[in-house]
Amino acid sequence: MTAAIRIRDGVVRGFIAKVFQRLGVAQEDAWVAADVLVRADLRGVESHGVNNLWQYVNPLRAGTLNPTPDIKVLRSSPVLASMDGDGGMGLVVGTKAMEMCIARAQEYGLAAVTVRRSRHFGMASYYSLMCLDHDMIGCSMTNNSGVGVIPTFGREPMLSTNPISVVAPTNHEPPFEMDFATSVAAMSKIGLAMATGGRIPVGWALDSQGQPTDDPQAAWDARSLLPLGGTRELGSHKGYGLAVLVDILTGVLGGGMYGNSFLRNPPEDDKLRVSSSHFFAALRVDVLQPIEEFKARMDDMLRALKESEKAEGQDRIYTHGEIEFEAEQERLRDGIPYHPALVTYLRELASEFDIRLQL
Amino acid sequence: MTAAIRIRDGVVRGFIAKVFQRLGVAQEDAWVAADVLVRADLRGVESHGVNNLWQYVNPLRAGTLNPTPDIKVLRSSPVLASMDGDGGMGLVVGTKAMEMCIARAQEYGLAAVTVRRSRHFGMASYYSLMCLDHDMIGCSMTNNSGVGVIPTFGREPMLSTNPISVVAPTNHEPPFEMDFATSVAAMSKIGLAMATGGRIPVGWALDSQGQPTDDPQAAWDARSLLPLGGTRELGSHKGYGLAVLVDILTGVLGGGMYGNSFLRNPPEDDKLRVSSSHFFAALRVDVLQPIEEFKARMDDMLRALKESEKAEGQDRIYTHGEIEFEAEQERLRDGIPYHPALVTYLRELASEFDIRLQL
Repeated sequence: MTAAIRIRDGVVRGFIAKVFQRLGVAQEDAWVAADVLVRADLRGVESHGVNNLWQYVNPLRAGTLNPTPDIKVLRSSPVLASMDGDGGMGLVVGTKAMEMCIARAQEYGLAAVTVRRSRHFGMASYYSLMCLDHDMIGCSMTNNSGVGVIPTFGREPMLSTNPISVVAPTNHEPPFEMDFATSVAAMSKIGLAMATGGRIPVGWALDSQGQPTDDPQAAWDARSLLPLGGTRELGSHKGYGLAVLVDILTGVLGGGMYGNSFLRNPPEDDKLRVSSSHFFAALRVDVLQPIEEFKARMDDMLRALKESEKAEGQDRIYTHGEIEFEAEQERLRDGIPYHPALVTYLRELASEFDIRLQL
Repeated sequence: MTAAIRIRDGVVRGFIAKVFQRLGVAQEDAWVAADVLVRADLRGVESHGVNNLWQYVNPLRAGTLNPTPDIKVLRSSPVLASMDGDGGMGLVVGTKAMEMCIARAQEYGLAAVTVRRSRHFGMASYYSLMCLDHDMIGCSMTNNSGVGVIPTFGREPMLSTNPISVVAPTNHEPPFEMDFATSVAAMSKIGLAMATGGRIPVGWALDSQGQPTDDPQAAWDARSLLPLGGTRELGSHKGYGLAVLVDILTGVLGGGMYGNSFLRNPPEDDKLRVSSSHFFAALRVDVLQPIEEFKARMDDMLRALKESEKAEGQDRIYTHGEIEFEAEQERLRDGIPYHPALVTYLRELASEFDIRLQL
């Protein structure tokens, strides 16, 4: 293993913001987008952090990702709205949508916003985590124009990994932060196994013959991840249902793509065909309960889970978001460890765009 | 197998409503409660239907379930409210809560209601299905004072099976109706295996030694169901997260019991200690999209899933709620098949309460 290079989050954030600005993104949006990526790295979710920068840089460079989207509200009631992302970065579009959602929840107690014609929005929990500053429970979901998950009893990729994130505030315990693909494993886990030369557990994916495989390359090529549960006997219809639910609340309700619709009925509008749809919700806790009471109850529940009896060979029970919270504390203090290959990429960008990168 | 006895849904509903009335339940509430149970049977969800009647009759008879609850709104914003069920039947309390939720969503586009001090509310999707009549997407969740699910890396039952149901309207296709326990399997499936003398799949539950078991009796006694996903490697932290999420939105937010709090800190109030908490949400589709357009998109997505390539040895891919929809069509026409032992129980109730039961 090559030693990682530690970089302060502020340094990376500022650098990436400048890269986005050089690519035509407005200053404020560039900082928002950089923050979404760096937050993922801070929380140890490298699969959705700066490792993914090229996924935004390349299409911005190629002109297939809109650096200056005209983000608009399409339809709206006091607490429910649909927005159009105009083919902009999901990182920017998602943040604006959740900001509106929070503002409406602040006023009415609860709100939801759907978004169409957006793109990859990074770590789903970035948006639900925004709700913590407002003592709200937050929810975030996304689909994308890509299929990699098969339905129960099927063998054709029909759904994207459709993640769900929900966050709830606490007092002393790390906030509850759930964020997961509705497939057994995320596609990024397959990619990681490919990169490290490992095998994947049987039960994650099928190969192109529709057979269970432990070969990550075969799984990657077939793009046939199994829905959470794995087999019908062990509840895969539940994971399959959650995946469809995410598609309903994002693409179907939001007016975007859903399932494999981009393959079956490809629209002429590029911004729609190659798009993600999102769903956000925010709930103001203190409408129902004094916030300190709620947080104390959250602490009590999470602590009881952690202190409950451990399985043989286990010495710790985790609550959701605990590992990420601890990573964030550590990395805010000591910097984010980056792979030298990624740092080389950042240096290349620094050179290309004439931006100072002080490591 | 003893031949089932078919009874028309109207006959059962009317009979059960009278049983509840004899036990002190007001006429309107008695009919609502009967409808929740019979709807489950119509949809083939026998585990939550009239088979469960004794679970309501016995405590009503013993005076430990309130036949005339004073159901109240505790706190409220325009679109978010908490209610108190006053120890009444969840069947009645849940229906009233969802009715209020729908009324508020009608006005504002979106609403959510939490409920504390309720009891077992039967089939979770009864309430989300109510939203179909209003062209809304509906959501329903519940916890209960009982533990039967262990957290990932744990071996102590800490959570109830915490089901989630979401329903969305369609046009030609059966409505999307998701309704499942957040454990790999529901406790009722263990009970069914015990009753029929079968084994359960390894991966559903642990025995009292914390070891995987295929013995339903051992699983029943240990009350250690595994969260959806089964093992950490296959994503059990996701099922565990969903279970905690349900407890947050029902018990923690609603001011009721959560996790194993009824064991750790038993409150003096019986109506609270032995209670379920619920969460309901309703979303008015036509705020964002003409309802016919939404339904056509739903049909399109669900049909594509059904028509996609089948796994080897499978000839059908189901959408969620399809099996239940077909059962309901058939049973509305031909009557509901009941086990003779259950019919004997109904006859005993008929005799005890002097109610005519015309089969």
